[in-house]
Amino acid sequence: MNQSASAIVAGVGPVRGLGAALASCFAEKGLHVFIAGRSAEKLDKVVQHIRASGGSVTPVVADITVEDDVRRLFDHVRTRGEAIDIAVYNVDSNVPAPFMETETKTFAVLWRQNCLGAFLFAKQTLNIMQAHGHGTLFFTGATASLRARPPFTAFASAKAALRALAQGLAREFSPHGIHVVHTIIDGVIDGERARNQFPEYIKTKGETGLLQPEAIAQTYWAIHQQQPSAWTHELDLRPFKEPF
Amino acid sequence: MNQSASAIVAGVGPVRGLGAALASCFAEKGLHVFIAGRSAEKLDKVVQHIRASGGSVTPVVADITVEDDVRRLFDHVRTRGEAIDIAVYNVDSNVPAPFMETETKTFAVLWRQNCLGAFLFAKQTLNIMQAHGHGTLFFTGATASLRARPPFTAFASAKAALRALAQGLAREFSPHGIHVVHTIIDGVIDGERARNQFPEYIKTKGETGLLQPEAIAQTYWAIHQQQPSAWTHELDLRPFKEPF
Amino acid sequence: MNQSASAIVAGVGPVRGLGAALASCFAEKGLHVFIAGRSAEKLDKVVQHIRASGGSVTPVVADITVEDDVRRLFDHVRTRGEAIDIAVYNVDSNVPAPFMETETKTFAVLWRQNCLGAFLFAKQTLNIMQAHGHGTLFFTGATASLRARPPFTAFASAKAALRALAQGLAREFSPHGIHVVHTIIDGVIDGERARNQFPEYIKTKGETGLLQPEAIAQTYWAIHQQQPSAWTHELDLRPFKEPF
Amino acid sequence: MNQSASAIVAGVGPVRGLGAALASCFAEKGLHVFIAGRSAEKLDKVVQHIRASGGSVTPVVADITVEDDVRRLFDHVRTRGEAIDIAVYNVDSNVPAPFMETETKTFAVLWRQNCLGAFLFAKQTLNIMQAHGHGTLFFTGATASLRARPPFTAFASAKAALRALAQGLAREFSPHGIHVVHTIIDGVIDGERARNQFPEYIKTKGETGLLQPEAIAQTYWAIHQQQPSAWTHELDLRPFKEPF
Repeated sequence: MNQSASAIVAGVGPVRGLGAALASCFAEKGLHVFIAGRSAEKLDKVVQHIRASGGSVTPVVADITVEDDVRRLFDHVRTRGEAIDIAVYNVDSNVPAPFMETETKTFAVLWRQNCLGAFLFAKQTLNIMQAHGHGTLFFTGATASLRARPPFTAFASAKAALRALAQGLAREFSPHGIHVVHTIIDGVIDGERARNQFPEYIKTKGETGLLQPEAIAQTYWAIHQQQPSAWTHELDLRPFKEPF
Repeated sequence: MNQSASAIVAGVGPVRGLGAALASCFAEKGLHVFIAGRSAEKLDKVVQHIRASGGSVTPVVADITVEDDVRRLFDHVRTRGEAIDIAVYNVDSNVPAPFMETETKTFAVLWRQNCLGAFLFAKQTLNIMQAHGHGTLFFTGATASLRARPPFTAFASAKAALRALAQGLAREFSPHGIHVVHTIIDGVIDGERARNQFPEYIKTKGETGLLQPEAIAQTYWAIHQQQPSAWTHELDLRPFKEPF
Repeated sequence: MNQSASAIVAGVGPVRGLGAALASCFAEKGLHVFIAGRSAEKLDKVVQHIRASGGSVTPVVADITVEDDVRRLFDHVRTRGEAIDIAVYNVDSNVPAPFMETETKTFAVLWRQNCLGAFLFAKQTLNIMQAHGHGTLFFTGATASLRARPPFTAFASAKAALRALAQGLAREFSPHGIHVVHTIIDGVIDGERARNQFPEYIKTKGETGLLQPEAIAQTYWAIHQQQPSAWTHELDLRPFKEPF
Repeated sequence: MNQSASAIVAGVGPVRGLGAALASCFAEKGLHVFIAGRSAEKLDKVVQHIRASGGSVTPVVADITVEDDVRRLFDHVRTRGEAIDIAVYNVDSNVPAPFMETETKTFAVLWRQNCLGAFLFAKQTLNIMQAHGHGTLFFTGATASLRARPPFTAFASAKAALRALAQGLAREFSPHGIHVVHTIIDGVIDGERARNQFPEYIKTKGETGLLQPEAIAQTYWAIHQQQPSAWTHELDLRPFKEPF
């Protein structure tokens, strides 16, 4: 792998989570990885985890919905003078509620985190990828990207907006050699977040009923390895047991 | 028709446009119609047009993306103490551009006008419709609601967000007797806006290649007339000549 | 209504069913109606019902999946020298089963009844509609047209095939002035068939949880009334209570 | 790789084609490969090609739409007493024509080859996979699986039927540990078939505008390698240049 090869993952939280698993996977493959998240403490743990396995990583505390933060994040990338081989917008923000109890602010925040941040992240990423003439840009979506159901209407609206963004970018940038991919994560990821937020639900799913972050990362890597003559722009990922 | 029957249309612009045609159609059917738009001048002409045909109408100048404006708009409705039989969110805001030339502000404004305004409008509408136990709530969508293509990526993202909102509301409120409908307008509406914005394109379409606002309004009315045992939640509308 | 106006409905069974309701609706509007089905006895009752209301109807016993029968059916239409204003392919054939218990013959029969018959019916219909330069051709679909779920995989495969046929025809014939429509009936129709086949399920739905055939027919008629500048090619129809 | 590991590919034609590339890929990975096609001569060449690279292969001349042929094909598999790790239904049969010029026989043949054969193939495959508790079953789809356009209406109808079959099987068999995948090949495969059938079109696409069979095979293999906690059931594959 080229020494200057690098990846960037936005939306990195707990060590046991998808963002961290993606970053670890890319680091194991020999890429330098930039990781961005809002919690310095969580990023620290991910950094330790990656370095313990011999990986190379730069953490950047950033709120991806704030334009200045995003610019600062990518200044780190530019300082190293590297191409971005893989970029992942992995932010996932959900606040379930009946519609009449959904605050305007919540509706706007979900859109900002699930979609506007992706817009800002994509602009910076594509700027660099275009200069180097290659790269894979992933957007992590969800079941709700395809279907809106209460109490997830606000989340679904934001995720649908993200999916359309990804699709438009795929159509605009693929002909220029940049691979844009939207994934539909259908199910619950076996990570710290779910274990904290809905422990009971996790139990009903059972160990084999959850998405393992490393298993997802394996597929992101495989899709990145695709040759330009046969690119995938959208795919679903779900536990074999998950009804759909 | 019940004397206190009323309709509300947000996104009313030129007399020759979909918003005005919907308002005129509902007024002709005997409903009192509240019309909202940003231009007092344009609303005035629509008011004259409707009153000339014997219709009853209340114009409210409002920016539908501003919460206070929306509240004020619905205060007019509440003052009359009426049910809302039909509400239409008919705002359509589009700024085509290559992705790298799309300003963050533009991306956000398109979302605010196509989707956030719909959220605000729906909240007020559903509040009244729930109190009366009935009503039809329409959202006007577009081809881009289903498919994102450059240079319409920002528009498509906003319209996809709107569609998901409509779908979530249909699933949440239909069981309570409120009919929520998303329409996909596929093609160019034969109105003042298109004639001003892309006169050449209009010519290539020819007279029969455009959607007539009155023809669209006829279908909105027919869908409103549906019995609850067979409700439509999404339908497309396009000129017979339109490739799709 | 033009004296020579006529409609044709294939897939007419019990008086209390969608085929009969469509035929009755069109007859009430003044069209002469050709009705086709496999049971002479059932057709007879529908004929009596329509004539009792002053309607004009010609029954033709036919197996719509047999080319000769279809030809014979349309010979009746040609003999009267009439245009066909509305044609409905309303055949719906379902045999739920786990995949490993689905016989090859069953899989083929479901395709023949849900799709091949539609092909034969459409060919004859379009031949006449093209000669007259107008007409509305409906195909009645189902939830399964969009989504395949066990034990309905064979049915879903056949209905998806039908939907694609309808979509291809809409794209090919709309520009020639022929309106092609695919409906997605999502739920259980309140008719003799359902009452015989799954009476318990019907009870759980309750009276307001079923699609009323007359309510569906009302929408078919409204769609037929659309002006060519704003045609619908696909729409869903479901009881307000139906989860989707 | 387990010595008794094996794959089966139905729809193997020229050495330069997707069926042959899939078989070669699986053979290179160490699986014994059963290949089925209608032309003994073509199968022979593929056999030579695979054996020249040290692969192990069994050719079976078979018409996959004929139940007896399919049974005989799987008798070969059973004789070796092997599990099937990967099965691919790769038959693709297309006869473009305006609808009014599409013969009933053609419409039926396209369905038999694109869908009925898949049904027969899936039944035998799933029978063996269920006995061994694992396996990946692929169905090769096309752009037309999602969208019907003239002059491809008959093809699209058959491919939509196939897609629904694949989806129903994914929902029914995934919980039992069998991975069912539908691929959407969007574009022209750089193979003998396309070069013979539409050489001029191939030229307009340019070398980088076509799908390379080996590139597609690489992704099939990657999907087969997925862990059950994160399975993909549908993905698209297209040349980076392909408009979509």
